[in-house]
Order: sequence, then structure tokens, then C-alpha cells
Amino acid sequence: MATESVESTRRAGLTGRGTIRVKYTIGIDLGGTNIAVGLVDGTGRILEKRTMPTDAARGADDMICRMAARAREVAAACAVPLSAVSGVGVGVPGACDTVTGVVRLAVNLGWRDVSLAGALGAHLGLPVALGNDADAAALGEVTAGVAAGCGNALMVTIGTGIGGGLVIDRKIFTGCGGVGTEPGHIMLAMDGEICGCGKRGCFEAYASATALIRQTKQAMQAHPGSTMWQFAGGASDGADGCTAFECAKAGDAAANQVVTQYISYLAAGIGSLINVFRPELVILGGGISNQGAYLTDRLDHCLWQYCYGGQQFPPPPVVCAVLGNDAGIIGAALLAQE
Amino acid sequence: MATESVESTRRAGLTGRGTIRVKYTIGIDLGGTNIAVGLVDGTGRILEKRTMPTDAARGADDMICRMAARAREVAAACAVPLSAVSGVGVGVPGACDTVTGVVRLAVNLGWRDVSLAGALGAHLGLPVALGNDADAAALGEVTAGVAAGCGNALMVTIGTGIGGGLVIDRKIFTGCGGVGTEPGHIMLAMDGEICGCGKRGCFEAYASATALIRQTKQAMQAHPGSTMWQFAGGASDGADGCTAFECAKAGDAAANQVVTQYISYLAAGIGSLINVFRPELVILGGGISNQGAYLTDRLDHCLWQYCYGGQQFPPPPVVCAVLGNDAGIIGAALLAQE
Repeated sequence: MATESVESTRRAGLTGRGTIRVKYTIGIDLGGTNIAVGLVDGTGRILEKRTMPTDAARGADDMICRMAARAREVAAACAVPLSAVSGVGVGVPGACDTVTGVVRLAVNLGWRDVSLAGALGAHLGLPVALGNDADAAALGEVTAGVAAGCGNALMVTIGTGIGGGLVIDRKIFTGCGGVGTEPGHIMLAMDGEICGCGKRGCFEAYASATALIRQTKQAMQAHPGSTMWQFAGGASDGADGCTAFECAKAGDAAANQVVTQYISYLAAGIGSLINVFRPELVILGGGISNQGAYLTDRLDHCLWQYCYGGQQFPPPPVVCAVLGNDAGIIGAALLAQE
Repeated sequence: MATESVESTRRAGLTGRGTIRVKYTIGIDLGGTNIAVGLVDGTGRILEKRTMPTDAARGADDMICRMAARAREVAAACAVPLSAVSGVGVGVPGACDTVTGVVRLAVNLGWRDVSLAGALGAHLGLPVALGNDADAAALGEVTAGVAAGCGNALMVTIGTGIGGGLVIDRKIFTGCGGVGTEPGHIMLAMDGEICGCGKRGCFEAYASATALIRQTKQAMQAHPGSTMWQFAGGASDGADGCTAFECAKAGDAAANQVVTQYISYLAAGIGSLINVFRPELVILGGGISNQGAYLTDRLDHCLWQYCYGGQQFPPPPVVCAVLGNDAGIIGAALLAQE
């Protein structure tokens, strides 16, 4: 590993960062359900990783101890001494103060004002950098994933909610205060559906996987003959984020209606984001992105309706993320390279 | 003028740009109705300015000739030779390619692919930098206006439409392709009111001065006894962007309803922009900003409803622009200092 070639670093598109540095960092994707810890090389490649349940109920100190233990394990598994690791980056599902290394608020972890960088750094004797998990995933995709040749992209991750991150010249756009962008909480419909954030009418309330499942169940109730019932195992509670898509592909008219409406919501929200951010590329992440070209082809078509600029400034391409859960580890590791 | 003091440069908050440079630039605010040309010193102060009608019908070459003539005049009036001017910046009401200096599309001027920087530069023998006019105004306010101490702000200018610009560390955020942000074209209501851009439901279609006047006229029709009729001279066509505000202040209930609803629209749009941009400060520009604290106090209150983050991340302050039309000249001049 000491012979890590300059060629492989160049291949990963890191030359734009100025210097080619062959080194190791540890990336931690701290999720509400699982924590993934990986040893990452200078090209953005994961050499070794460990995943464990988050078990947030055991408290912050316990979680930090376990993250440190997994970090030691991944380094040891590659025979890399911690002294050869330049730093640790953590992607946090919440808002961090990136300067002080304090997690200000992470609702899914039950954390408020936790000095994560200080505590984890003390365990490992390494500098620790924090960032938002969605921002880290965007950085991962832009550096070592689908947008590796681009360096500028907006990533929109569709899951239980909608998160995302904007990367400009391979740097995360954090806005003031380091909180990062919240693309799921632009408005789509004033006084509309209630959102998980407590406001009404957010993009997330219409285009998250949660919203798609709600729309699917409503269509099932309205169309007792739809094949969505079989797909969902006979009960509307069996519907998931794939139900409407898969039945639409098989020719079910009610399912196609759900998908068409859902893609309109997605296009309206992404169109707004394009109008304000003007990204070079939009990356779709989360489970929905597994729909691939079936989704992006229809979305591309629909975006023209919601993007400002017409033929003179056509909407940027929309592509699906390719790194999956690894994007969070790789992006977190990159935070430590800043 | 050769004795321009270092103190005055510092006072304008330019020290953050690295070096204190005492020099002259020419800023041109190229509007659809008027063109304003000013000689600006290193502190962002206008020393001399000229304004003339745009007369777009006379064509691009004629306009460029006249801009060059006014540029020579303002320099001559201050006894500054053109050789002491470091460059010219032009704020254009449209989309520019800032690298090639070509105005790609400026609908109000009837321009498409005009090599403005090349042609104006040839007239004056000076380098010419282009930028969007709303971006230039934002840069002016952040450098020499209401946000001089801040350096990071989102400016939202309410006029016939809604424009604006985001300034981060005293640099305009242009997005990819240099087109800049279009804050007026985020969505407020899917499938809602038709917007001037041809799309439906844009922020601009609800919260521009044009939209406020439309809302005022509708309320006048619904409330024949409202004092708005007198204020507007007895005809609904006499209503302008002040009518509802002034009558609301005087206690008219129907006018107050218009203002309350209008401020909700404004808060919903600005709230969305805050959620994605996380600015340190929001600057309101355009005629509506003359309402001052009467507007911003109510808007501040209303923003809590539309901003993500609650008490942990309260909305940034909203302030009114102070430079008026001069912001465009000063900001354009600053483009030439980049």
C-alpha cells in the first residue's frame, strides 16, 4: 500500500485539488440506524469498512467509543498504523458547527451540542472534521462517483425525507454558519401537505419516499382493481417506494398516474433548486434512484416545464448516484482531507 | 483625489479583500429604461455619474458608443485620465458569459449574443467585465451599502419581477455557467399563477410589485368602500405598489388584508431561499423596500413559519437596501476590480 501509484490518484480526478497526496483517512457515516466506518485511500477508495447498529439509546459516549474501536479495526485490518492516518471525517445526520466540531442538533440520534470532534479525536489521537451526512455523500459522488469528472453538482437524496448537498469546485457549499443547504425544505405548495419539519408544503412532503408511499396507498384505495394490490401483498401497508414504479412499468394505469404525478413533484422541486443553484449536474440519490433511466428520462423531459431559461439555458443533466451507501464514508473521509 | 486616504478605504469594509487599493473603475448599470454610468473610487464611492435613456431601439452598436461617451465624460469631469482607470464593469439585465464577455440573452434590450465586453473595451482601451445587474446590485450593497460589515448576504430585489443575487465572502455566487441565481423563479404554488417567465406558480408571480398591484386591484373590486379607491384617484388603474401599504397604515381593513397576504407570499419565498442558501443577512431591494421597518418587522415575524431550523437556527435578519439605484453602478464597478 505504500506503493499506491500516482496514476490511481489521477484517475480519481483529485488532481484538480492542487496536489496529489497519497495518504489514508477514516470516513464515518453516522446514520440514525447504522454507523459505517471505512479506511479510505488518497484516491477516494474504501480499503476496509465495518458497519454496526447505531444504538443511539446507549448514549453519545458509548457511540463515540464504538466508532473509535471500529476506526482502529479498519486501520489494523489493512496493516495501516494510526500514525499513517491523517484524520477522521464524520458525516452527521444533523447540523454541525464545523469550526468547533460540535454537533448542534441531530434529532435522530437524540443529540444536542455534543462535542463529537473533541471526544472522538481524544480517543484516536487524530484530528476529526465534521460535516452533514448529505453533504458528505454529495462530496463522495462528486469526487469518486458519478460526477468525478465534473466537480460541481447538486445532489438530492430521496429517502424518508429529502436531503442533499451542493458541491462547487469540489467543496461543499455550507452557507453561513456551516449548516448546509436544506433542499427538501423549499416550498412546493403554500399551505400544502404537512411536512416532517412542522412546516407545510415542503418539497419533502411531496417527493420523499414517504410521500410516494402515501400517494401509492391513496391510489390503491381509489383503484381496487390495480395490480398494485398484488404487488403489495394484498394490503396497502405492504406498499413501498417501488410499488407504483414496478406496476407502472408492467402497464398498470393507476400506478402510472401515481408515477407521473410523483415525477412532476420531483421536477418542480428540482427545477426550483436548479433555478437558484445553476448546478452543472444533478445527482439523484436514495432508493428511488435505483429506478435509473426509467426515472431520469421522464424527469429530464418534465424539468423543462419548471426550469427558467428555456432553450438558451437548458436544464442540466440528471444522473443517478452510483456509490450507494459508500458515498457517505468516502465523502466523510474527504472532509478530513480539507 | 490622488490623496485618497487609506482610512476611507478601510471604512468601506474593503480590507477583507486582501489589499487596500486606491484606484478608479467605471461602473455601468445597463437597464431596460435607463443607463447609468459612474466613476467609482477604491472605496466604492461614486465620484461622478451620468444617466441617459436606454433607447434600445437604436441598436446595440449605438448603445455601446453612448456608454463609451458617458464613461469618458465622468472620468473627464473628475480630471481622471482613462489611463488611471483600471477597468469598466457592466451590470446587464440578462444572462452573460462572464468569461467571454458576451451578453447571451437580454430580453429587455432585444440582445442575443452581443460581444459587449469586446466592443466597449475597444472603444475605451480598457478591460471590461460583465455581470448580471441584480448580482451587481447585491455586490454593491454588500461592499458599500447596508451589508458592508457582513460580506455574506442574499439580496432580493422586488420590482416588475423579482431578481436578486447571493454574495459569499464578497464574491457573487454565479452557479455554473456564470448565469447567477434566479430567486424569483423558485416555486411557491405548483400549477399556480402564470409568471412572466412562462412557468406557473413562481415566487415572482406572487410577490413582485406587479403581483402586489394585481392583488391590490382585486381587493379594491371586492371592497368598494375601501380607502384604497381614494388613494388610487378613484380608479383601480391608479393603484400602485404603495396603495395597499399606505392605506393599511391608515387603518383600512381591506388594505391590511392585502398587505398581510402579500407579506406571507414574500416570507414563503424568502423562507425557501433561506433554507437553501443559509445567508447571514437578507437585503430587500426595489421600491417595496421603501416601506422600511413597517415591512421588515412583519416579515421577520412571518419568516419563522417558513424557515427550517426553529429556535436552534433562527432566520437571518432582513434589512432594506440603502444605496438605491447607485448599488447597480457601484456593484458594476466592483466587477471590474475582481
